[in-house]
Amino acid sequence: MAMNTPRPLSGFPELLPAQRMVEQQIIDGLRRTFELHGFAPIETRAVEPIQRLTGGGEIDKEIYAVRRLADLGDSGNDDAEGGLGLHFDLTVPFARYVLENAGRLDFPFRRYQIQKVWRGERPQGGRFREFTQADIDIIAKDVLAFHHDIEVARVMGEVLAALPAQVPALRLQVSNRKLLQGFLTGIGAPDVAGAMRVIDKLDKVPTEVIGDLLRTDTGLCAEQVKVCLEFAGIRTTDTSFVERVRALGVQDPALEEGLGELAAVLEACADLAPGRVSVEADLRIARGLDYYTGTVFETRMLGYEALGSICSGGRYDSLASDGRTTYPGVGISLGLSRLLIPLFADGTLRASRNVPSAVLVALADEESRDATNLVAQALRARGIPTEVSAAAEKYGKQIRFAQRRGIPYVWFPRTAPESEHEVKNIDSGEQVPADPDTWLPPAQDLTVAIDAAPSTAE
Amino acid sequence: MAMNTPRPLSGFPELLPAQRMVEQQIIDGLRRTFELHGFAPIETRAVEPIQRLTGGGEIDKEIYAVRRLADLGDSGNDDAEGGLGLHFDLTVPFARYVLENAGRLDFPFRRYQIQKVWRGERPQGGRFREFTQADIDIIAKDVLAFHHDIEVARVMGEVLAALPAQVPALRLQVSNRKLLQGFLTGIGAPDVAGAMRVIDKLDKVPTEVIGDLLRTDTGLCAEQVKVCLEFAGIRTTDTSFVERVRALGVQDPALEEGLGELAAVLEACADLAPGRVSVEADLRIARGLDYYTGTVFETRMLGYEALGSICSGGRYDSLASDGRTTYPGVGISLGLSRLLIPLFADGTLRASRNVPSAVLVALADEESRDATNLVAQALRARGIPTEVSAAAEKYGKQIRFAQRRGIPYVWFPRTAPESEHEVKNIDSGEQVPADPDTWLPPAQDLTVAIDAAPSTAE
Repeated sequence: MAMNTPRPLSGFPELLPAQRMVEQQIIDGLRRTFELHGFAPIETRAVEPIQRLTGGGEIDKEIYAVRRLADLGDSGNDDAEGGLGLHFDLTVPFARYVLENAGRLDFPFRRYQIQKVWRGERPQGGRFREFTQADIDIIAKDVLAFHHDIEVARVMGEVLAALPAQVPALRLQVSNRKLLQGFLTGIGAPDVAGAMRVIDKLDKVPTEVIGDLLRTDTGLCAEQVKVCLEFAGIRTTDTSFVERVRALGVQDPALEEGLGELAAVLEACADLAPGRVSVEADLRIARGLDYYTGTVFETRMLGYEALGSICSGGRYDSLASDGRTTYPGVGISLGLSRLLIPLFADGTLRASRNVPSAVLVALADEESRDATNLVAQALRARGIPTEVSAAAEKYGKQIRFAQRRGIPYVWFPRTAPESEHEVKNIDSGEQVPADPDTWLPPAQDLTVAIDAAPSTAE
Repeated sequence: MAMNTPRPLSGFPELLPAQRMVEQQIIDGLRRTFELHGFAPIETRAVEPIQRLTGGGEIDKEIYAVRRLADLGDSGNDDAEGGLGLHFDLTVPFARYVLENAGRLDFPFRRYQIQKVWRGERPQGGRFREFTQADIDIIAKDVLAFHHDIEVARVMGEVLAALPAQVPALRLQVSNRKLLQGFLTGIGAPDVAGAMRVIDKLDKVPTEVIGDLLRTDTGLCAEQVKVCLEFAGIRTTDTSFVERVRALGVQDPALEEGLGELAAVLEACADLAPGRVSVEADLRIARGLDYYTGTVFETRMLGYEALGSICSGGRYDSLASDGRTTYPGVGISLGLSRLLIPLFADGTLRASRNVPSAVLVALADEESRDATNLVAQALRARGIPTEVSAAAEKYGKQIRFAQRRGIPYVWFPRTAPESEHEVKNIDSGEQVPADPDTWLPPAQDLTVAIDAAPSTAE
């Protein structure tokens, strides 16, 4: 196919092979942790009826509609295709999947889902039009016990703690809707929901402006504003937030319940990975307009705070409902692209080589290709990724070819039955006799390592 | 979110968790084989400019166009969004990716790519609107040696041979464009391309009709038609096709070259997996309108021939070109959804359980949850997927819960420091003392097995 040289599409990031190998390793790590905790994998189709995506309400500009090209000109043809759009998260499709398959699932149902999602928004720092999310949710019929809130926090905490050491430290910030809601009720706020929405903007808007908004838009008096801002400023890495809230002297049953739940989450996550993942109670966190009803999560990457939260979620009293049965749920969504792409872009995360191959088998001449292939097959049979030189060029050139790709070993097959095979370590230059049926590279060379060295020798 | 009970969308298949676990295992197997051969993973964005998808030519009805919902009413707004469509294969995006990143890739470049693709066609047996493909390609600058044709055949052959034993036997059918093209040239066919297109329909259209078409539409005489049909009827599992072609007495240099290449592919794949994957020369295979120039592949699944080819590909002299450099390539695409979904539908492929968990840790009472979680953590720390009972119901009920999910073991934590933990094998009913720091289930119970038993105990 003849083409002009194409240019990247803004908001649709693509990775180079070395970066994709790092992403794959990280995804494999997530899957391992999720499955160790009994979370089952699902994938949902990329499209949903637009009606479902918009919740039957107002049309959302961020949705990508999908139509057969032949039907694009026809207006009013939406029904023929069902009026489809690309999903913008994994929660709406999961809720639909649960309703559709409720009779074939066992509850509480734990699932993980790692997929692309699409949003038609303006691309900007950390925001993409196509990106990968990794979601876990636990969903039950009618009632979901609180201990599952602790469970998802713990599982996602373990996932974050197991990220490569090059990923900057992460701060999992937890709060509970009942806390802020109960507190606002307890101080007699006239518009609790409005005040929650204002307080949720605390990390984007100066505190004085928030104070003004609370007064003018939500009808709080000066004393109420003061105590609200004191409450929202509470941030602790242990359960001492409980005493600090109590010191404000506000009484409310929901507030008490929220304090107990949040303290339980903090305690369960205390031993995660000190220095790598810190967990803290942060009473500002309210998750804006989302329909959370209890525990809420956000996550910041230290040094990359401008990205916003890279891992968010919480508890819904009703993740899905078909009118007869209600499905409460709790879940967290890791923004994998939002986390990784800035780290690829600034070189924080990179692979030790550009190909999976640990060994390049050198080719003496084209006539030896079959025998050379047998050496490669012997190595592969023992799990060593191996490629054979494309052409029987001078050995120096073949070695430089391996170097350019970051392949750590070059294998020289024996040239006569009585001679020996030899293998050269590109890094050290050392070359030793070796048997293709027994030789193994050190474990750190067997698979692609993260950031052991620059990804090319150039 | 309150919703009506949703119905599946025709042509957009979704898997149950147990099926997805099987698909994941199979994809992991593909990745392992591809990477052992040095193929690097890439993913491309889901969308391409429509102009690129249509090759600048006529608009293809099978393409799904993608537009921001807010822009759907506007005609002539294509440029604002670049006029995007969902990719319908992985070849067009790969060609574009190579051109876009040519300066950052080392050639010959081996890549694998496992992704969803979308086609707006009528859903019917084995045809979907959203489906997963697994592609491998090797691409070079200017010249790609023939031995890479053998390499991709061999790698995909190994992949097919490593599929679960429940997958029916597969027949990899290979031919070479040069053969049919050279043969038609050698007999003096006036319209070689037209005759190739007609012969390609041999598996859908009766032979007599093909004969008539060759006469009426491509200008062959009766004697030429006869020898053509004899040629196209040649199918051998070894290199004896060479003698049978030569016996037809047609001379042509391209024919000779094709015979040599095809014989080399057959020889290299002879030892793959007798009984599981057979490889044969099938001289009818021409791959219709595709731009192949040498080796061509198709694959049939025995007993499922109506699905058509589940794994196809071949050699392009120009997979991509930017006007200055031409990139020849050779590749094969495995239609993973087309292969797996019929086997899920008829129960040929199923998982031994519905969740990853190998162990359910029973809960004596809610007060023991923390201690019970520690047992689960000890098991997970040694790679055993484990979940804890959601509620402290009677043990009989907890055991039935495990049974329903197909979890093979239930763990009963000790109730006092001086008592012992016990583990029950659900299948045998045997219950024995066990230590969470040393106990291991048999390997076949550790991960989900394929079709060891029906997926539920009901």
